[in-house]
This record gives sequence, C-alpha cells and structure tokens, in this order.
Amino acid sequence: MQYGYFDNENREYVITRPDAPAPWTNYLGTEKFCTVISHNAGGYSFYNSPEYNRVTKFRPNATFDRPGHYVYLRDDETGDYWSISWQPVAKSLDEANYEVRHGLSYSKFKCQYSDIEATKTLFVPKGEDAEVWDVVIRNTGDKPRTISAFSFVEFSFSHIASDNQNHQMSLYSAGTSYQDGVIEYDLFYNTNDFEGYYYLASTFTPDSYDGQRDSFLGLYRDESNPIAVEKGQCSNHTQTCYNHCGSLHKQFTIAPGEEVRFAYVLGIGKGNGERLRAKYQDLSEVDAAFDAIKAHWDERCAKFQVTSPNEGLDTMLNTWTLYQAETCVVWSRFASFIEVGGRTGLGYRDTAQDAMAVPHSAPEMTRKRIVDLLRGQVKAGYGLHLFDPDWFDPDKADVEPSKSPTVVPTPSDEDKIHGIADTCSDDHLWLVPTICRYVMETGETDFFDEVIPYADGGNATVYEHMKAALNFTDEHVGATGIAKGLRADWNDCLNLGGGESSMVAFLHYWALQDFVDLARNRGELDDVAYYQQMAQKVQDACETHL
Amino acid sequence: MQYGYFDNENREYVITRPDAPAPWTNYLGTEKFCTVISHNAGGYSFYNSPEYNRVTKFRPNATFDRPGHYVYLRDDETGDYWSISWQPVAKSLDEANYEVRHGLSYSKFKCQYSDIEATKTLFVPKGEDAEVWDVVIRNTGDKPRTISAFSFVEFSFSHIASDNQNHQMSLYSAGTSYQDGVIEYDLFYNTNDFEGYYYLASTFTPDSYDGQRDSFLGLYRDESNPIAVEKGQCSNHTQTCYNHCGSLHKQFTIAPGEEVRFAYVLGIGKGNGERLRAKYQDLSEVDAAFDAIKAHWDERCAKFQVTSPNEGLDTMLNTWTLYQAETCVVWSRFASFIEVGGRTGLGYRDTAQDAMAVPHSAPEMTRKRIVDLLRGQVKAGYGLHLFDPDWFDPDKADVEPSKSPTVVPTPSDEDKIHGIADTCSDDHLWLVPTICRYVMETGETDFFDEVIPYADGGNATVYEHMKAALNFTDEHVGATGIAKGLRADWNDCLNLGGGESSMVAFLHYWALQDFVDLARNRGELDDVAYYQQMAQKVQDACETHL
Repeated sequence: MQYGYFDNENREYVITRPDAPAPWTNYLGTEKFCTVISHNAGGYSFYNSPEYNRVTKFRPNATFDRPGHYVYLRDDETGDYWSISWQPVAKSLDEANYEVRHGLSYSKFKCQYSDIEATKTLFVPKGEDAEVWDVVIRNTGDKPRTISAFSFVEFSFSHIASDNQNHQMSLYSAGTSYQDGVIEYDLFYNTNDFEGYYYLASTFTPDSYDGQRDSFLGLYRDESNPIAVEKGQCSNHTQTCYNHCGSLHKQFTIAPGEEVRFAYVLGIGKGNGERLRAKYQDLSEVDAAFDAIKAHWDERCAKFQVTSPNEGLDTMLNTWTLYQAETCVVWSRFASFIEVGGRTGLGYRDTAQDAMAVPHSAPEMTRKRIVDLLRGQVKAGYGLHLFDPDWFDPDKADVEPSKSPTVVPTPSDEDKIHGIADTCSDDHLWLVPTICRYVMETGETDFFDEVIPYADGGNATVYEHMKAALNFTDEHVGATGIAKGLRADWNDCLNLGGGESSMVAFLHYWALQDFVDLARNRGELDDVAYYQQMAQKVQDACETHL
Repeated sequence: MQYGYFDNENREYVITRPDAPAPWTNYLGTEKFCTVISHNAGGYSFYNSPEYNRVTKFRPNATFDRPGHYVYLRDDETGDYWSISWQPVAKSLDEANYEVRHGLSYSKFKCQYSDIEATKTLFVPKGEDAEVWDVVIRNTGDKPRTISAFSFVEFSFSHIASDNQNHQMSLYSAGTSYQDGVIEYDLFYNTNDFEGYYYLASTFTPDSYDGQRDSFLGLYRDESNPIAVEKGQCSNHTQTCYNHCGSLHKQFTIAPGEEVRFAYVLGIGKGNGERLRAKYQDLSEVDAAFDAIKAHWDERCAKFQVTSPNEGLDTMLNTWTLYQAETCVVWSRFASFIEVGGRTGLGYRDTAQDAMAVPHSAPEMTRKRIVDLLRGQVKAGYGLHLFDPDWFDPDKADVEPSKSPTVVPTPSDEDKIHGIADTCSDDHLWLVPTICRYVMETGETDFFDEVIPYADGGNATVYEHMKAALNFTDEHVGATGIAKGLRADWNDCLNLGGGESSMVAFLHYWALQDFVDLARNRGELDDVAYYQQMAQKVQDACETHL
C-alpha cells in the first residue's frame, strides 16, 4: 500500500492518500510557539511548555485525531461542504483529491473537489508566537462560484489536566470576545496579559463568527458536520463559560480561473491578534515569513550534505534526521501524539542524545542543552530523569511555578531532586560523548573549564561533571562488575526490578573512551591512567559475563 | 422544553427525550466497583479509585460523552442497525423511541424501533466487582426477525494519565484474549492478578468477538458506525498492543411476540469473567442481584421519609438528596463527568459535608469517613485539603503506592502533609458539626474519647481533635478578627490571594455553638467558658465589620 513519497527537491514528504492507517505528524515552529499537526490537520498548539500554555485542544488516542486546525469550504449555491484537509468532513476519495506536504516546519494541505482547488499552508513565522494559515481558493471550473470559508480551532484551558481531567473550574473560567476580525479568548485565572490570552484572526472582514464550540458545532454533532457550516452562517455568539472556539466565516464569489487568497492567524498574547491581522493583510508579509522558515532550514541543512550510492540514506541524512533531532532539541520529546503534553521540561537521556546530533548545525542550541543537563546533574553523578531546566536556571530563579486554579497541594523544592530509586542507569552517561562531540565541532575547549552548579548544590567544572558521571556508574555495579540497571536502563520498560544492564556497561565503556582521549588532550595523565583502568575493568566484566 | 420527569413510585428519573442539552449521569455500584453512566450510555467504570484502576475509557468534555457501555442491534435481513441507548448510533427520533430510567444504583435503557423493543438494565451486584447488563430483545411485530446483538466497551489503561496523556507505554503493555464467551484484558505492567485484569463476558455463546478497538470500529470510523456492526460480524481478533475493547456478538431469531434475554458482565479480576458468566447464565441470579440493589436503597430511604405540602420537596428529601449524599460518601467527588478521575482519595470539606447528611441511614459509613478525616487532620488543627485515607490507615500502611510504568520520580512521604500555603480556611471546621450530628443520631458518646492519630504524628481524642480545629481558625484571623481566607474558603475559586472570609467566620461560629453544647453535655465547664468566649469574639467581629 503506497500512501506517499519523499520529494527531496522540496524537502517534503508528500502524502497522497489521506486515509493512512495512522496520523502522520509534523512540527510547526522553531522558537516558542509549536504546533503538532497531522496529515489530516488534527493536532494542537502550545507555547513553550506542552503541559502548560496549551493553546488548542486535542483528544489523544481517540478514534480520530481531533480536534485540529481546520478550514471548511461550502458551496453556497448547493449547501454542499467539505474541508481543505480530508478530515474532518472526509469527502469520499472517489470524488475528492487530497495531497498533504509535510515540509520543514510547515505543512501544506491541498484539496481538489467540485472544480475548486484549495490549499492551506500552516507555519509559525520566526519572531512571532503565532501560526499563520495561508489559504488560497481557486475556481478551476467554467462558471462563477459562491464559496464560504470557515475556520475552526478549539481553544485549550491551558493546562492539560484542565482539558482532560478536571473541568470544575475550567468550564467556568474562560470566555471569548469578538472585535474587527479577531476572536480573543481570555483565561481569567491566568492574569498574565501574554499567556492568559489566545486568539484567532482573519485577514478578511468576517461575515459571521463563533466563539463557542457548541454553537459552532451544534448539539450531538462534531467536527465532521458543524451546524454553522451546514447552515452557511455562524451564530455570532461569544460567552464566558463552557468550551471555546475560533471560527471566522466569509463568503467569496470567485470567477472561473480566478482565486482568492487570505490568511488566518492563531496565536497567544493580548492584542497580538489585532497586530498580526494588520501585518498579514499585506500578503507579501506572509510570503516573507514563509521564505524565512525555508531559509532557516536551508542554512541548517547546508552544514552537512552527503551523496551516497543509496538515495534513501541521502534522504534521511540530508534532511530528515537533522530535522527530527533539532525539533526534539527545541521541543523535547514531551509533545507528540504519543506523549501529549503531560510534562514540562526535558528527559535526561533523550536530550543528551538529540543534542549529540546537531552540534554542527545548531551549536548554540546544543550548548544550551548541555548546560541545562549539567545543571540537572546531582553531585553524586547521576542525572535527574525528568526535569524542567527553568528550575536550575539562575535567570529564572524568581519565576513562580504555575499554580493550579483548583486547590491542589504544591510540590516542594526538595521534590525536584529524586533519589537513587528513581535514577536511570544510563542517563548521565550520554552526556559525556555529547559534550565531546560539541567541543570537537566547535573547538570550544574552554568549555571543559566552565564552572556549572550541580542540581543539589556545589559547583564543578564541566570536566569534573563528566568525571562524576563516569564515577557514578563505576560505583553502581553488581557482583559481576556489570552496571546495575537501577530504576531502568535505556529501555524504560525494563524497570520491573533491579538487575544489571549490559547495555549500560557498553555505554560506560564508550563514554570512557571519549573521556580518556579528552584527558590525554588536556595532559591530565593521572586521569588518563585512572579512567583507562576503569575502562579495562568494564571490558573485563563484559568479556567474562556477557 | 420537557426532557423527563420523576417517577416517585419507582424512585426513578425518567428521561423521555435523549437529545437533552447535556449528559444526565447516574452512579452504579454501592461498594468498590463504580460506573458513572449518562442517559446516552456514555461513561466509565473504575475499581475503588477513579485515578487508578479505571476499567473502561472515557473522553471527557468532548463533543459526545463517549465511549460508553453500548449494545448495538442489527437487523440481519436488511443490514439496518441501531443501539439500545440513543447514542452512539443516534437513529432519528422520528422513527425510534427511547426512554431512560435512572434509578438508585441502576439505569435502564429502552428502545422501540422497527417492531423491536429492547431494554438494557445496568447495575453492579452487591458483593461482586462487576457490572451486569441485563438485555431483553422483544419482537413486537408480526413476522420472525433475525437480530444480531453486539456489546462494546473500550478498556482503560488503568491510570487516567495512561489513557489521556502518555501512551508511550500504555499502547504496548496490554492485550486481550478470548475463550468461551469471555474477553479477558491483561495489563502487563500490573502484576496483580486482581487489578491487572478486566473482562467482558456474555451469558450466550458468541458467534464472533473483537478484542481490538480498531478492528471493531474500523479505521476513520467511531462508535456511531462500527465496521463490525455494519458487516454483521466481528473479526475474531485479539492482540497484545494498541487499544482494546470487549465486543461479543450473537445472532438471534425471534418469533413474533417472543423475546430473548441474556446478560453481559463487565468486571475486574482474573478468572472472574468465567465465574460470573456461569453464575448469571441462570437469569434468576440476575433478578436476585437486581432485587438486592432495590432492597439496599429501600432500607436506606425508609429511615427518613417526609410528607409535606410540596411534592417536589418530598421527591428530593425522600429519595434524591439521600442518594446523592451517600453516593458522594462512597465514591468521593472525584468521579463524575466534571472531575473525571484525576485524583484518588477525598476532598476534606466535601467529605465532611456529605457525611453530615447520612448518619441516620448509613451510620457505619459516616463513622468511617469521620475517622478518615480525623486521621487527615494535622496537629496544628487544619485538614489536608486532598488526601488518600489509605495513607493514614494503619491496616494499609504496608501497601505500596501505585508506581507509574514510565520512569517518573515518586513523591516522598513528606509531600502528603501540605503546609499553610495550601490550607483552605473552612475544611477542618465542617468536621465539628459532622461529628456532633453523627453522635446525636447514634448515641455513641464514647466516640469523643476515642484516640486517633494526627496526620503528622501524635495522638489525641476526637474531642481534642475538634478543639484543635476550632483553635486553628481562632489563631488565623485578620486584623479585623474575621477569619483569614488562606488558600481558599468554601469557594475554591476565591483563591487569588489572601483576604478574609465572612463565610468562614460564620462557619466557625456555627461549629462553636455545636461544640459548646457538647462540652456542656460532657460537663467540661472550662471548655464551655473558653469556647463561648471564642464564639462571642467571632460574633463581635462579624457585627462590627460585616
């Protein structure tokens, strides 16, 4: 079964059959505003943390990946309607043709149906905390058409638990208002003028709008058959409780061969809707923002390109592995359709591994993550398996953590430092080769002497941090000399009770090789001898017992 | 708009129009196994805790209250299908007639469509951790009919976060198997033979079955149009990953005027499916179990009945307030469609208030909850706003807390005792009148001398606990003498920063009146004088400042 192909020239994956057996997701955004979007336009946006500051809602692992970021089209002469992405209306694939292009930080949805060709390109402009939907509707037939367009997003209650578990406050603590082409959503218990406001704006002047989900969709309906689209008109309703959406509607008359183009903007921050609506009414600004995203990735990819006898290998190395690694470095692994945002911050090993892949293309970002990880290491040498780098960032020491609107006891500072019972045996070891690779790429040998605090207090140079990591594993081996598994090794599932890990023993050995080279380069001959001996001990244990 | 009425004779609320503007929910179960079910059969089951041991899945606050506990019927001559509850198939109400009766711990769904009258009665037998679905299909037409019945439930991954947020392990850690009319679901990371197994069984011998959700529903379909029902046949598929369901299918031939009756059983515990399938194949056992539920509530309600000039008042007092209060005492307020199970345990004030309403009808349960609350009080006098009574139950001291299958740091014991920053100003005060009402109903005056530990160590009599509660508020007043609001007062939403609470001052005064009466009855004259003076102080502050 063929659902798509790689378009290497455009660095895109092209999905030609939207009825794929699972959602195919992409990431929009390169800075603070992120959207995880599927090839059927299902998904969600968040700002900075996928746990807090969720901008649009998502129902994970349901039978459909909904809701999403949708544009509906309606033939106002016949009442027939569809969506630019195949879902949620899901016109028969016998009569409608859909193509989706997942590019680097953008996704482009294209639909051909009843002599209308429509595209919707989603991306997050650099420098803005917003997602632009660039929409073009073209009349490919030979008679004039009257087409209505409707947007739909469902606004989140910010915290994932307020969306998914506890609605005793969320349903009564937010409202929308409409003015001049902007639906602004205000989350009352967030008194911050930036994070407490979301919006959906259109560059056109709307004919009608809806700020209430259930007014737009109708009772006992869902995203597949909204009452507003069926009627051809929103209800012009906003309200200060229940569930909220952004739908802006406009009717267009399109001559044969002609097209209309406009944009929706979804974002965060009070007043930003009005500002960006004005900015992107000049569609050349949309083009410029899109070009800047393209340039961002062209520059990244240009750093390392291969031509091998295997085209598939070239495709992966020249575009997709870099894109995937950097995306994970920016957003962590906590935002996807598998982990849907239950956490803020970083996984220790994941971040070390991801950062290891991009020192050549994104050295500053790599360095930042290495520093985050070093601050998340405890004196004893192990890493905090899951942590929020803000906890240990001196520039953010005064930032109050998010507090639940409901009365829920607040965890104490001590909770941040977990003990050996929650320590994974591999986490800290990944850091050693990651640091070496960063310095090998950048030549920043001074970095080893930079002093960085441990999570539980005390300072040490980067070089000493690395020794602490290697020593921790040396001190935590079983009777055989093979590293203990602790809470889990690289395989999080292997956490059902103790044991030893050959995988971690190998990893320890690998990290020791890097470190011995480093010590030799620095002329630290005692360390060379000491860690060579440690490596030999690991090797002997492996040869004997594995 | 009229959607239903109270049937006082049967103690039922009857919903006559299923297209009500919001789900109307009922609670099934009186002991450990609970189902929250709507009038459209949407909802979820859990065992003991709505946070852990969730048995069936639920997507809260979505556009539909799904999934649920469904029975589909299919006319095997025409292929037409519907559901015994209006949702999820939602036949037009012009051609199908639906009635739902929410009774005391049972719900009865009735459907009349195309000369078939079908009922489905859901309840949880006393003494069993299972839900019985008693199904009757009657041919009310004048020709023989061939009707297929299909069950559908979607099994939960046990923890609410595994269902709603993080699927990195849940999707790969469970499986179903089928044998002799039982689909058994095994959650591999739960190694407990009871809590690690759920099942769906039928008293009939199935013609086909499905253990995989997506095999039963089909891709890009949902509960409204399952592919298995459309085809008239399940796929006989079980698997050890992804999402799991219980569907058992049987075709019946029903003569005019005749009916068939059978049961499905949904429950928890390895092997229980086989056992209960055998038990309820004798349908008189189903009748006996249902009668026992009826008798349970008849006895409770008989304790206090009023006849007033207002029929509505009688309806509420004689049936529904008692039912609601006891249901909350048993299940807490953490299981509903508003709070969907994000917590285990009790809310302090809620439990004190609920327990206050049932000392006459459920004195043992009231006493148990009072003891739970006293154990959840700290020496300083305030109550732990949210806590799990198991933490402080000496019989459960050795029970290990549930551990996430993913590597997530485990909170420490100290986290259980929150500080003043998370203290609500009213919680502890509700306890005083609750205890007084319990003793007034039961005459158990010795209870005041029972010694019960505080949550943070140390022992005290119940009488001393009560004094600690009253003293705490006395010590936490503002400059005016009015009680401080602390994290929040009775209104959880009023937690946006300090202040004083007239509501808590009134509550303090009320509790003091009860306590002074109690002290006088015990002949503790020093306490009478001391707490009368405290009450006077509160009164003066209120008269002066409010």
